[in-house]
Amino acid sequence: MKDTELSRRDLLNAARVGALGAATIGSLGAQVAAAATGPQPHGAGLFGIEALPDPLARRVRWAVVGLGNFAVGQMIPAFLQAQHARITAFVSGNPGKAADLAARYGVTRLYSYDTFDQIAHDPEVDCVYIALPVGLHAEFTIRALKAGKHVLCEKPMASTSAECRAMIAAAQSAGRQLGVAYRVHFDPFNIAAADMIKAGDFGTVRHLIAENCLEIDPAYPPHVWRLTRALGGGGSMFDYGIYGLNGCLMMAPDTTPIDVSAIYTTPRGDTRFAQVEGGVQWRMRFAGGMTAQGTSSYAGAHVNRLLVAGTGGSLAMDPANVYDRNRALRRRPKEPDLVIDTVASQPQFAGQIDGFSLAARDNVPHRTPGEMGLRDITLIEAIYRSADAGGAPVKV
Amino acid sequence: MKDTELSRRDLLNAARVGALGAATIGSLGAQVAAAATGPQPHGAGLFGIEALPDPLARRVRWAVVGLGNFAVGQMIPAFLQAQHARITAFVSGNPGKAADLAARYGVTRLYSYDTFDQIAHDPEVDCVYIALPVGLHAEFTIRALKAGKHVLCEKPMASTSAECRAMIAAAQSAGRQLGVAYRVHFDPFNIAAADMIKAGDFGTVRHLIAENCLEIDPAYPPHVWRLTRALGGGGSMFDYGIYGLNGCLMMAPDTTPIDVSAIYTTPRGDTRFAQVEGGVQWRMRFAGGMTAQGTSSYAGAHVNRLLVAGTGGSLAMDPANVYDRNRALRRRPKEPDLVIDTVASQPQFAGQIDGFSLAARDNVPHRTPGEMGLRDITLIEAIYRSADAGGAPVKV
Repeated sequence: MKDTELSRRDLLNAARVGALGAATIGSLGAQVAAAATGPQPHGAGLFGIEALPDPLARRVRWAVVGLGNFAVGQMIPAFLQAQHARITAFVSGNPGKAADLAARYGVTRLYSYDTFDQIAHDPEVDCVYIALPVGLHAEFTIRALKAGKHVLCEKPMASTSAECRAMIAAAQSAGRQLGVAYRVHFDPFNIAAADMIKAGDFGTVRHLIAENCLEIDPAYPPHVWRLTRALGGGGSMFDYGIYGLNGCLMMAPDTTPIDVSAIYTTPRGDTRFAQVEGGVQWRMRFAGGMTAQGTSSYAGAHVNRLLVAGTGGSLAMDPANVYDRNRALRRRPKEPDLVIDTVASQPQFAGQIDGFSLAARDNVPHRTPGEMGLRDITLIEAIYRSADAGGAPVKV
Repeated sequence: MKDTELSRRDLLNAARVGALGAATIGSLGAQVAAAATGPQPHGAGLFGIEALPDPLARRVRWAVVGLGNFAVGQMIPAFLQAQHARITAFVSGNPGKAADLAARYGVTRLYSYDTFDQIAHDPEVDCVYIALPVGLHAEFTIRALKAGKHVLCEKPMASTSAECRAMIAAAQSAGRQLGVAYRVHFDPFNIAAADMIKAGDFGTVRHLIAENCLEIDPAYPPHVWRLTRALGGGGSMFDYGIYGLNGCLMMAPDTTPIDVSAIYTTPRGDTRFAQVEGGVQWRMRFAGGMTAQGTSSYAGAHVNRLLVAGTGGSLAMDPANVYDRNRALRRRPKEPDLVIDTVASQPQFAGQIDGFSLAARDNVPHRTPGEMGLRDITLIEAIYRSADAGGAPVKV
């Protein structure tokens, strides 16, 4: 590596930190500044991928599609923590917002939803991150794949399993990778939990039990599209309960569900839920005898838990899969209880970006591929089918 | 009150403490010794009934039927903490064990199961506590009621709802009280939780979720009868899952279930569970829109939790209803999380004994009457019916 390259990278990184402002990003700024000066001793530990950050010029280049609350608040800042990725383009229906963010993040390429297909001719875009409402995932994912780009699509993957299948087919036709943004699979806390389970720390797992409740606020703009079927795809189960479903399957040593049963728990007469379910409880049986069950609600104060109960102990995760500071209580017979508390910020968003960047660069399947998204939407469809039919189990 | 009476009471109490041995009972001995010298400042707070302990001669007199592990280890020692009760008789099929315990507790009346009906003529017995295997509850409860005694019967109340009805009818015929020993209703921690819920601390309750798992050991004598249908009445749901069911209903501001659905989770090929279910998961809907669900298992490491999730917050009880040191995490939006930790020993057994003693003395219904036991057994029968039929909801 030439000295001039290093200088340019340092300069650009410093500029990016400066553009965002140290006061805004706090310790993140310090981390990025440190990263810019060379390898960090804890680089591998943070993301588990490799020790050395890529020089900026060799990083995988991303277009971010949709500049809503989540993209702006979580994912775009996480690119500053990523070691193998950088944003080169924004795609938005709001030119003013896009221009403002472009200035803050040093992004030079701007597309609208109408001009989006022109990224096919943009050599500065390798990957596309889709952060649109669920109802638009299939369309924009397929357009991006047809443009020859790899796609990381936000969860839930799409409104229907048919859409998911079309997305997977488009990826196969294009010879590109398709991933679903299940950030939890890049959360060191959840990875450690899954590893403990796999190592047999809790004996034979018997039950996985998840609760994901939040109170949806129709007066809060980021919540509005979630209450519209055409945009949200479904209700609480699509947007929030899916964490419990996917989390159970992430922790499951035996991932062959046999059947699923469910009931709706939407509060009667609650006008928020005219188009989508406000709550659902589901239960799944597995080939090996294990069960999973989940409570998903848009109509209750925040609950975010996952219990793993086995013959050799239990792990009570609470909160299980929030952005930051997930915690767990590990209990094993004849041992003192162990509190697992991730006091530091969880670099799960950056880990996810890096994971997909490397999968795209090498054109190998991502840790959370389209097939995982399809599996979950298929299960959610079965959950709704059981609930629609009154709650008897349906085969999956 | 005469000085001589006080002296006699002190003497007898001191003798009881001495017989059990201070080393055995630890701080309990000190408490009882303190109680013997007069009213304690925290007497009302402990049991919530009245401030002054009865002099020994005026206490309600009890026969304990069945001297198994639970009676000997938990309930009989708890009579030393009670303020309105004392044991006057033991009923056992094991004369040696009965004689030994009688000597330790200063009990002079001993009956066998064959001679049990003679308590009808024993003026020194007001109440009978039934601590036999479930399959014998109905028979001995009805015999005790026919003998004109009030009966506190261990949970679960009986093997079938038909037996429960016969027991209630026998109590009505005899004009005596019938209670079911749901100790949790006398646990200050659980009472406080129910009060918080009733006061609206968590808004409208949406979900009650309970887990009760324990690993049954067929080599451990106190577990053996639980695996025999004739003695246990049913499997994990009868003996342990019932805590979750009863606990949800104790916490439920809306106690009108509409339907229940369930699946068995008994591990395949597990020879322990030839006669009774090894696990069941159930879900209940209520008239008001609330749901409750429970996981009950005889085949997993110990889990004992109850979650109350409402529109205004949540209470995660863990452990929820063990003998000692129940704990909870209370979460409400925009407030710091609050850990509720009952560091001191829970006097729930003594509170239950005192509660029933006063109900018997005044011949008024107990806090946990036979009707509550019947309700729970009826629900468990519906749970089994749903599981037997493949898991579709059944009306209750």
